[in-house]
Amino acid sequence: MDYKVKDIKLAAAGKLKIAWAEREMPVLAEIKKDFSKNKPFKGLRLGVCLHVTKETAVLLRALVAGGAKLSVCGSNPLSTQDDVAAALASEGVTIYAWKYQSSKDYYMCLNKVLDSKPQLTIDDGADLISLIHSKRTELLETVLAGQEETTTGVIRLKAMAKDGALRYPIVAVNDTPTKHLFDNYYGTGQSTIDSLMRVSNVLLAGKTVVVAGYGHCGRGVALRASGMGSHVIVTEIDPVKALQAKMDGYMVMPMTQAAKVGDVFLTVTGNKEVITEKHFKLMKDGAVVGNSGHFNVEISLPDIEKLSKSKQTVRDELVEYTLKDGRRIYIIAEGRLMNLAAAEGHPSAVMDMSFADQALTAAWLVKNYKNLDSQVYDVPSEIDVRVAKLKLKSFGIFIDTLTPEQQKYLASWQEGT
Amino acid sequence: MDYKVKDIKLAAAGKLKIAWAEREMPVLAEIKKDFSKNKPFKGLRLGVCLHVTKETAVLLRALVAGGAKLSVCGSNPLSTQDDVAAALASEGVTIYAWKYQSSKDYYMCLNKVLDSKPQLTIDDGADLISLIHSKRTELLETVLAGQEETTTGVIRLKAMAKDGALRYPIVAVNDTPTKHLFDNYYGTGQSTIDSLMRVSNVLLAGKTVVVAGYGHCGRGVALRASGMGSHVIVTEIDPVKALQAKMDGYMVMPMTQAAKVGDVFLTVTGNKEVITEKHFKLMKDGAVVGNSGHFNVEISLPDIEKLSKSKQTVRDELVEYTLKDGRRIYIIAEGRLMNLAAAEGHPSAVMDMSFADQALTAAWLVKNYKNLDSQVYDVPSEIDVRVAKLKLKSFGIFIDTLTPEQQKYLASWQEGT
Amino acid sequence: MDYKVKDIKLAAAGKLKIAWAEREMPVLAEIKKDFSKNKPFKGLRLGVCLHVTKETAVLLRALVAGGAKLSVCGSNPLSTQDDVAAALASEGVTIYAWKYQSSKDYYMCLNKVLDSKPQLTIDDGADLISLIHSKRTELLETVLAGQEETTTGVIRLKAMAKDGALRYPIVAVNDTPTKHLFDNYYGTGQSTIDSLMRVSNVLLAGKTVVVAGYGHCGRGVALRASGMGSHVIVTEIDPVKALQAKMDGYMVMPMTQAAKVGDVFLTVTGNKEVITEKHFKLMKDGAVVGNSGHFNVEISLPDIEKLSKSKQTVRDELVEYTLKDGRRIYIIAEGRLMNLAAAEGHPSAVMDMSFADQALTAAWLVKNYKNLDSQVYDVPSEIDVRVAKLKLKSFGIFIDTLTPEQQKYLASWQEGT
Amino acid sequence: MDYKVKDIKLAAAGKLKIAWAEREMPVLAEIKKDFSKNKPFKGLRLGVCLHVTKETAVLLRALVAGGAKLSVCGSNPLSTQDDVAAALASEGVTIYAWKYQSSKDYYMCLNKVLDSKPQLTIDDGADLISLIHSKRTELLETVLAGQEETTTGVIRLKAMAKDGALRYPIVAVNDTPTKHLFDNYYGTGQSTIDSLMRVSNVLLAGKTVVVAGYGHCGRGVALRASGMGSHVIVTEIDPVKALQAKMDGYMVMPMTQAAKVGDVFLTVTGNKEVITEKHFKLMKDGAVVGNSGHFNVEISLPDIEKLSKSKQTVRDELVEYTLKDGRRIYIIAEGRLMNLAAAEGHPSAVMDMSFADQALTAAWLVKNYKNLDSQVYDVPSEIDVRVAKLKLKSFGIFIDTLTPEQQKYLASWQEGT
Repeated sequence: MDYKVKDIKLAAAGKLKIAWAEREMPVLAEIKKDFSKNKPFKGLRLGVCLHVTKETAVLLRALVAGGAKLSVCGSNPLSTQDDVAAALASEGVTIYAWKYQSSKDYYMCLNKVLDSKPQLTIDDGADLISLIHSKRTELLETVLAGQEETTTGVIRLKAMAKDGALRYPIVAVNDTPTKHLFDNYYGTGQSTIDSLMRVSNVLLAGKTVVVAGYGHCGRGVALRASGMGSHVIVTEIDPVKALQAKMDGYMVMPMTQAAKVGDVFLTVTGNKEVITEKHFKLMKDGAVVGNSGHFNVEISLPDIEKLSKSKQTVRDELVEYTLKDGRRIYIIAEGRLMNLAAAEGHPSAVMDMSFADQALTAAWLVKNYKNLDSQVYDVPSEIDVRVAKLKLKSFGIFIDTLTPEQQKYLASWQEGT
Repeated sequence: MDYKVKDIKLAAAGKLKIAWAEREMPVLAEIKKDFSKNKPFKGLRLGVCLHVTKETAVLLRALVAGGAKLSVCGSNPLSTQDDVAAALASEGVTIYAWKYQSSKDYYMCLNKVLDSKPQLTIDDGADLISLIHSKRTELLETVLAGQEETTTGVIRLKAMAKDGALRYPIVAVNDTPTKHLFDNYYGTGQSTIDSLMRVSNVLLAGKTVVVAGYGHCGRGVALRASGMGSHVIVTEIDPVKALQAKMDGYMVMPMTQAAKVGDVFLTVTGNKEVITEKHFKLMKDGAVVGNSGHFNVEISLPDIEKLSKSKQTVRDELVEYTLKDGRRIYIIAEGRLMNLAAAEGHPSAVMDMSFADQALTAAWLVKNYKNLDSQVYDVPSEIDVRVAKLKLKSFGIFIDTLTPEQQKYLASWQEGT
Repeated sequence: MDYKVKDIKLAAAGKLKIAWAEREMPVLAEIKKDFSKNKPFKGLRLGVCLHVTKETAVLLRALVAGGAKLSVCGSNPLSTQDDVAAALASEGVTIYAWKYQSSKDYYMCLNKVLDSKPQLTIDDGADLISLIHSKRTELLETVLAGQEETTTGVIRLKAMAKDGALRYPIVAVNDTPTKHLFDNYYGTGQSTIDSLMRVSNVLLAGKTVVVAGYGHCGRGVALRASGMGSHVIVTEIDPVKALQAKMDGYMVMPMTQAAKVGDVFLTVTGNKEVITEKHFKLMKDGAVVGNSGHFNVEISLPDIEKLSKSKQTVRDELVEYTLKDGRRIYIIAEGRLMNLAAAEGHPSAVMDMSFADQALTAAWLVKNYKNLDSQVYDVPSEIDVRVAKLKLKSFGIFIDTLTPEQQKYLASWQEGT
Repeated sequence: MDYKVKDIKLAAAGKLKIAWAEREMPVLAEIKKDFSKNKPFKGLRLGVCLHVTKETAVLLRALVAGGAKLSVCGSNPLSTQDDVAAALASEGVTIYAWKYQSSKDYYMCLNKVLDSKPQLTIDDGADLISLIHSKRTELLETVLAGQEETTTGVIRLKAMAKDGALRYPIVAVNDTPTKHLFDNYYGTGQSTIDSLMRVSNVLLAGKTVVVAGYGHCGRGVALRASGMGSHVIVTEIDPVKALQAKMDGYMVMPMTQAAKVGDVFLTVTGNKEVITEKHFKLMKDGAVVGNSGHFNVEISLPDIEKLSKSKQTVRDELVEYTLKDGRRIYIIAEGRLMNLAAAEGHPSAVMDMSFADQALTAAWLVKNYKNLDSQVYDVPSEIDVRVAKLKLKSFGIFIDTLTPEQQKYLASWQEGT
């Protein structure tokens, strides 16, 4: 058995965690059952580079059940849950992952995974694919196909494909409806509010919560803040989204104006410098500021540092900055993704769908890679539909189906006859 | 002056109506002001075939202000508001429109409009375009461009374009965000619930309302029913939409199951035979059934007729069917679009945006038709943005703009550098 | 047969209306069934002075089914629905009621009712009781008991009781939970928003709606406005209620501040001069102002008249005032109760409960008047519970009951042992 | 200096906690400022028996600022926050409190407080009052008045007063609007949902949440569950409350029916045995069950123990019971108050109001005890109004005040003239 984890004795704790996640991930459970029977990956080597969390573990168990020989590393030096890694190792998964890796360690782990000569690569940030295309080109002979989770990764791979530099077919898992419509809206919505309460315990009823950004994530956050009794203000740079926020009953204004009246500020824009010096200067004493956008650049830490005469940690992941004029501003988790830093990230039930897309995509690639070019493909819509159907089934929900007459009617209408 | 309307003496009443609509249509008011100054249609002949309503009148006034010579007819033999038509005629608009036209009259009016040799055609159902491509091909010499409002029309025009049969450039106004995201969701949502209350006066709090279809329209209807205190059940045929409904907190089930427990049924599917014999058989005594989908085929009137031993009109636009087993079922407006038949259609504030898209598209076509092929084009996104900005301005709302650094950041990220 | 109505030929239309109300009034239907069997009013003369509407008719039918000999008049010169009065007359009810009565006619009708020597009086405004205590004191010999619907009436009767002037026992129906918790909150909430949409057809999504007063009625109105997508501002004079509004997520501010930003103003305070000159002066062009409080004194019509240079009716029950500075303000139904003037008042389903309280109180009085003093009594709580149970039953809802152990636990806890 | 706490070195951590609470308790801050100036307790000895938490500490600091000589003990052997107790001790407060006290220690602490010969007693469970009336009657000579926080305490004191056994005047703080309307509804609502997320991290969107009890607490919990996207089912034993739940749009059914469909069960009834064997038998595999009612008797732990073949702790405060048939049921915090056990109890912002009532009541008693009998009094309404006003002020909110004309109108109407 080959692995490198923090402490194999953490396996029991990790298994408990994974079991809890499994309870909320019925779609992957169904897929695992199916994989166990049909062994879609029988004899195949899969190279996996993902955040090693309890939810990922449920995905990996399904792949193993399908006959895959896994070789796994973490996709970020800080995100591995050591007990989960230990649990996987103890179950025989070849895994190289622990929390707080050095950059050198990180690359060593990537290369260990590649040493297994993967036929399928599963990436979250395109690191395996990049290495194969640069320093490990000898693997291009054995690799059949790959899949990528992140937006950023997909953008780069599409650029490569456009330049003719991509050397094997990739499926972009990120944009498929059963992932982004649910993950961003319901997942970010709940976990952001959850982490706000954990980190601050403030009463949300009656508070003025400023949500920066009204994309899928921002809409989810605004809805949940409102559902907890807060008065929500939205800031936007896109007029159409701003108008949607207004018609959804929220107030809409520029951040310089919102800064004066907000009690809590939550950024979910995907952009940088959304809250900066000029906003901090206007905020009320006691304002709480957090970020649920992907990167920690939405709130300018340098700016608040510059304005402050002192700072102290007043609760877990909550730092009080005392400004030179005496006002205090509270920053959650140093502006990093607050739902991960100060809570548990997306609930497992949401990751169930994203990872079911991953599992089914992998099986689909095994069957179809021969017909694919070295391009970036969308998740086939039948996978999306299947995931949604399985999730509905897990809720015990049945829905209507089109009659032949209805299908004909729709078709005729679409054809304009 | 050339016109044919029901009764020119209705003009005063029509003007009052139009004035009320104008109050709710500030975007068109701004555009009209701009048109008055810049005269984008100076000397141009516009052929217009639209539903003649108070909101359309506001659009037409803007076009006239822009220097257009209009020639107008109604796009449906039943939809003309006679007082509005009279008001337009009294203001000097060449218009041929009245309610309850025969088919012959209807085509006569279309041809009268075409006799004006329009250089731009504005259609809602592609009737002008069709005539020009079939019986009035001599006009292809003078017509420069056109625009089409409906989905159905656009589908046919795209088919024509694909076959090389389209002879002049068309802009499809229907699908642009400032139209369909607002019109379908906020417009249909409110007007459906409004018409339900007008037609029945039932207390919505505590009622079980079944919404068939969870597209933009269905989502709007479900939200508003819920906002009035109803318990909402959603039926769907699309698993992803069904799952969204479930995660939005609604119950989801097949119509055969919902039929047993619903107090009110509202169809917004765009399909046919959504509520049929097998559903009527299961409904509770007193169920109220209405449709907000485009066509009157969602609820099967033949089926309820077949099951009933008698029927009577119990309130305006509400017919009580007494079934052979004694149960009574109430059908709103014979299954036609209930928000139009039993209320006033979409509120003017929503049409403000759709018609602003029309107005700005017309002006854009005048400037750009020379560079266009005989294809179907989307509304240019700058028009969408401008409409949203004007609407926000009418609310007195200002929003943030990207700093150069933010623009650069977004761009760099999209480029994957 | 003895009656005086507008036109007995309206009976068929009236019966249709009543039938529609009956459909929404299942509690009264159950009570009627029970009354039919047990004849609680057998041989008794009931004098009834109520608003003659389709819902009242359902109550009266129940009383008739219980064996009562009714003598009925309207409780307001303007509120009688002539077709309903005709329907009742055609069914043999002795009734004197038509719309637009002179004051002389009104008192003539009251006296006609009293001529029947009622043993029980059912009042909505205490007019029968007052007459019996003043000009018709000879009836004090035959009258056994009475009941009163309105708050105002109850206040006066309590004052009389306190002074020893009350001469027979009265039950105050107004304050019982199954009436005021439902009628005010759900009834006023829906009917106010309903009438706003009927009278104006404005899009509520995105509008700023100012609700003056956050009692049961105001809370209902705010909830429904919010449920239709409006941004709600509450004004209050009571700090506790103001704080509840704030914690419910609304903005709270003085009317002088709200006046500047509101699109729609709805008063539900029960006080006078809530919106006056100083507020009209601050309002935006196009503001819509209506009242759902009981009296037409909440909005100062004299003030808006004084500020205006002209006025015109622009839609049914909607008057446009053009102020001297050019701004236009729209007043709904001259500031009278908008849900009655511009819609159909409370939905029947809500009146079902209030009138069930009336019906059961009448039956209870027949059984218990002998043990009562000449005081004002509350509705016995068993009636309240029975009405709630019947309403739940009509929804097909069953609920839990306390086990003996639970009853004992609660009792012991309340006793502090 | 006299104190007994766990570890005085925890003071720094405690001060940080208290500072965080103070930030959310602006009403007490204002009162403290006022107390500092006016010294209402100058030279007075106050005996205090309350849960020693960060919020209580804010109250105690205000009393100290007012000149009070405090003697403090905890009101429960388990509820003391040791760092907060240390902080108070370090500030010079005479305090005897630590977590995990034996019964003997507990009473020792009570007696230590009484040894200070308090002139005012502040109780949460009437322990000081009881001791004074039983074993420490010598103190009746020096004690002037007292106040009691809990419902249970108040019930007992009222029984004593009725029997003539109460020997000094008491104010019941529990039932005043600014306490129970906010604490129960907003406080329990948020903290219950907060603790559910912390303890389980389940996605609430789409979950079916069963709320047992629809009093103020239950309504708050249902509203917040719904606000997080859950489908809410309410169970009740009171028909009027059940009907309110139904009209608020929730499903209502008996627990035996709800047991089959619920994903999460939350009890807030104040009764015992709300969820028992017969319900556990019907629940779905994976059901999560928690309690937010005051005592840990709502969920029958003996019953689930009896039905289970094994149990294990799967997350903090979450125990998995595996039933003999293989189904797993998860119990939160052994059925104890989940918002305290698995989160942080009510947010400070809510306790701000309850404790402001306490502070102002104490000051009022000092001024008024001479005019009071040995009875149980309500909080004077001017205190309630003052607390609400201060809270509004802390939000920066101003509200309207009645004009003399309005006051007269209301008065005249109330007088029935």
